[in-house]
Amino acid sequence: MTENGVLSRDKVLTIDTMNPTVKNVEYAVRGPIVQRAMQVEKELREGVKKPFTEVIKANIGDAHAMGQKPITFFRQVLALCSYPELLNENMFPEDAKNRARRILQACGGSSVGAYSASQGIDCVRQDVARYIERRDGGVPCDPDNVYLTTGASDGIVTMLKLLVCGEGASRTGVMISIPQYPLYSAALAELGAVQVNYYLNEEKCWSMDLSELERSLAEARKHCNPKALCIINPGNPTGQVQSRQCIEDVIRFAAKERLFLMADEVYQDNVYAEGCQFHSFKKVLFELGPEYSDNVELASFHSTSKCYMGECGFRGGYMEVINMDPEVQAQLSKLVSVRLCPPVPGQVLMDLVVNSPQPGEPSYTTFMKERTATLSLLAEKAKLTEQILNTVPGITCNPVQGAMYSFPNISLPEKSIKEAKALGQAPDMFYCMKLLEETGICLVPGSGFGQKDGTYHFRMTILPPTDKLKILLAKVKEFHQKFTQQYS
Amino acid sequence: MTENGVLSRDKVLTIDTMNPTVKNVEYAVRGPIVQRAMQVEKELREGVKKPFTEVIKANIGDAHAMGQKPITFFRQVLALCSYPELLNENMFPEDAKNRARRILQACGGSSVGAYSASQGIDCVRQDVARYIERRDGGVPCDPDNVYLTTGASDGIVTMLKLLVCGEGASRTGVMISIPQYPLYSAALAELGAVQVNYYLNEEKCWSMDLSELERSLAEARKHCNPKALCIINPGNPTGQVQSRQCIEDVIRFAAKERLFLMADEVYQDNVYAEGCQFHSFKKVLFELGPEYSDNVELASFHSTSKCYMGECGFRGGYMEVINMDPEVQAQLSKLVSVRLCPPVPGQVLMDLVVNSPQPGEPSYTTFMKERTATLSLLAEKAKLTEQILNTVPGITCNPVQGAMYSFPNISLPEKSIKEAKALGQAPDMFYCMKLLEETGICLVPGSGFGQKDGTYHFRMTILPPTDKLKILLAKVKEFHQKFTQQYS
Repeated sequence: MTENGVLSRDKVLTIDTMNPTVKNVEYAVRGPIVQRAMQVEKELREGVKKPFTEVIKANIGDAHAMGQKPITFFRQVLALCSYPELLNENMFPEDAKNRARRILQACGGSSVGAYSASQGIDCVRQDVARYIERRDGGVPCDPDNVYLTTGASDGIVTMLKLLVCGEGASRTGVMISIPQYPLYSAALAELGAVQVNYYLNEEKCWSMDLSELERSLAEARKHCNPKALCIINPGNPTGQVQSRQCIEDVIRFAAKERLFLMADEVYQDNVYAEGCQFHSFKKVLFELGPEYSDNVELASFHSTSKCYMGECGFRGGYMEVINMDPEVQAQLSKLVSVRLCPPVPGQVLMDLVVNSPQPGEPSYTTFMKERTATLSLLAEKAKLTEQILNTVPGITCNPVQGAMYSFPNISLPEKSIKEAKALGQAPDMFYCMKLLEETGICLVPGSGFGQKDGTYHFRMTILPPTDKLKILLAKVKEFHQKFTQQYS
Repeated sequence: MTENGVLSRDKVLTIDTMNPTVKNVEYAVRGPIVQRAMQVEKELREGVKKPFTEVIKANIGDAHAMGQKPITFFRQVLALCSYPELLNENMFPEDAKNRARRILQACGGSSVGAYSASQGIDCVRQDVARYIERRDGGVPCDPDNVYLTTGASDGIVTMLKLLVCGEGASRTGVMISIPQYPLYSAALAELGAVQVNYYLNEEKCWSMDLSELERSLAEARKHCNPKALCIINPGNPTGQVQSRQCIEDVIRFAAKERLFLMADEVYQDNVYAEGCQFHSFKKVLFELGPEYSDNVELASFHSTSKCYMGECGFRGGYMEVINMDPEVQAQLSKLVSVRLCPPVPGQVLMDLVVNSPQPGEPSYTTFMKERTATLSLLAEKAKLTEQILNTVPGITCNPVQGAMYSFPNISLPEKSIKEAKALGQAPDMFYCMKLLEETGICLVPGSGFGQKDGTYHFRMTILPPTDKLKILLAKVKEFHQKFTQQYS
């Protein structure tokens, strides 16, 4: 009975009757720790006394939220496309106006409010193709193989959806790195596919070892049908940049073992460490010659959310598919048509990223200044993070070669591990929750990404402004020492 | 062997090894006829001679592509949010600036480039809740039950995903109207759920008959577990507006039969016919008293793509869930977090729709003028379409009471049906293809939406500008007469 005396009945949709695969989904980056952080923020606003005055969020790669400024040129073109009356004003540089005119011409009714083709606006896909060709030293790219997406996540989920089938021992297995970005585990859980873990080598700066790939695959073949291998390079959450040799090894492995390659390359401009360089899987594939470039199936993903632009809110992205069976590609094109089209403002932004101001154009100098400043600052913060964390006894941090994260190893005292387990919590979740309650710092426990049994980590972004990052690192240092003492 | 002599191998991902549920997906609105229309357009550009000079697309509800102008106020605020430097210019009205400032304040780092909360920006959800309360005469709406989405499609697919489970005779069944909007059939195919058809009554202006719902449900219970009932009101593709009595009947039916209600109400402002009025399922639910309003589970969907704004490209939308089990709702919140957030520009637009200029504000007069002009024009075109189609012998068209489509019944001569079947085509696909090749007009065959066996239809939007709509209707008339003659 409800309070007003009306007979209540059972719900149609309950935790017991709902889709069981959805229940298996976990997504640490926005999980319990972030929900608690939002509560803590609310409590602070309501005047609850805490040992800190603000929550510092280093849980998610959200550059603008951490104060990074957007690229002026990009936002000018977006404003022009949103409100084309502005084309009549002389406050905008000519190159911004030209870009806007070109994009509007490619839109139905010259409006970004029209649906685009499901695969994305033609001229944007052409610009993406030319960008990929420049990036890869001339390796050809067919715009028909480029699909614009709603952020990279959308492309990754779509590709996984195509790949998954079978039941029992013939269920599709997908190899993902551990630690991984939890979009992969979440999507695989939702699709009912088998997550096949291969471990990155923390001792060798989170590199991929061929022997580990072989072990993982052999193991998986006992109970499922492994069909794809996912790589994130530069790495999330681990911040490594893969060597050309490593990528070559992975491609040869995929060819030999008949695996579909998925290369998550959204951090392709985020490379900081001396001697490190971004190599696209596609470029290396083509350098290996036609035995590989005519055969190995590859999907590569990019996004407007990372690199120097950090425009997460626009949900822009693309994927390129290489050597995909034409019948399957027709199915892919059909599948994306059901969602009508990716958001057009995100498509516009993707176009600007792949077709940025060129030398001689009025916006070039400012664009380059802004781009370089952002990337240099990130490089500094990557270094700073690594250095300070490595001064803390009990914390060991690999160099942040690229991407936007450090993923340090933390030693946790036995007593704290026991206490966590008694509470039914992962020990690093227990640690991060305590850190949040005592310092207001929000990090994500390593258990949310996966890690070797008996090791503990957290992921922190390097995005907070330098002064806040320094405070954050000092607080983590102090907290870790206190925590270690308390539980020893 | 490939041409350069390298041994070719089988693909990993082929039509035989890919996800079989994806293969079952069909989406007529962007299906073969639209692909052919795009080819024809290309051929015209390349100078191929045709009996027409342009393709007129009436296949999809894409208002801006058909020349509808965006609402000035909405685009001003979007431009201001995209490039906040414009807040310093005196070319924008104060109310547009105030809206932009308020939204930017609610964004991380005051940037629409930051991720929002996965459920959507707080203040936008609050504005949506207040809009729903006003619309429904004060029925309360909790912003925590509002989820911003990537267009309505995203919300619908998410809800279906929560509902689907089971195998064999206990597989989830979802009742959908026939004719239906093919997003439903496509999503159900992809999710492996059972599509349970109930037929709308064409003789009674596409109304929902209780007896047909009962027949359909009883039939379905023999082979699956029907859990949800989907309604599109105003109707797509059928253009009817449901009476209050009909909605009441449907709610009582859902309560009695324990069905989760999904109300697709994206055309809520598109009501043209005298005596017709939009009634939201939620409002009627609450008017039926606590026996219903405390119990019946309902999800309602809205979008920025239709109504008077027609901003399809932005992929904005929301859903409200009512009486959802709190544990399930927690799962829903977790599920949406995996995709990070809906596109922020679409969220901004959704906010403007639910929080449009008010009397006394500087933009009010222009806003109302633009809104009224668009809706009046649509009402005129709805009437025009119905009238002209009904002058054609062999075409019968129900009044277009609302939405943006007419779905006339077409009589096809036996000979044409035989010829179509010999080609393996649905007879109305054969008809629409011929129409396209001979006149350049792109409509969608009724078979893409479902229809009673032995009846044939097409869906056309009422969106083309009046002069083009007149040409289109005249050409359809002429074609239908010629076609009937040719195959008689």
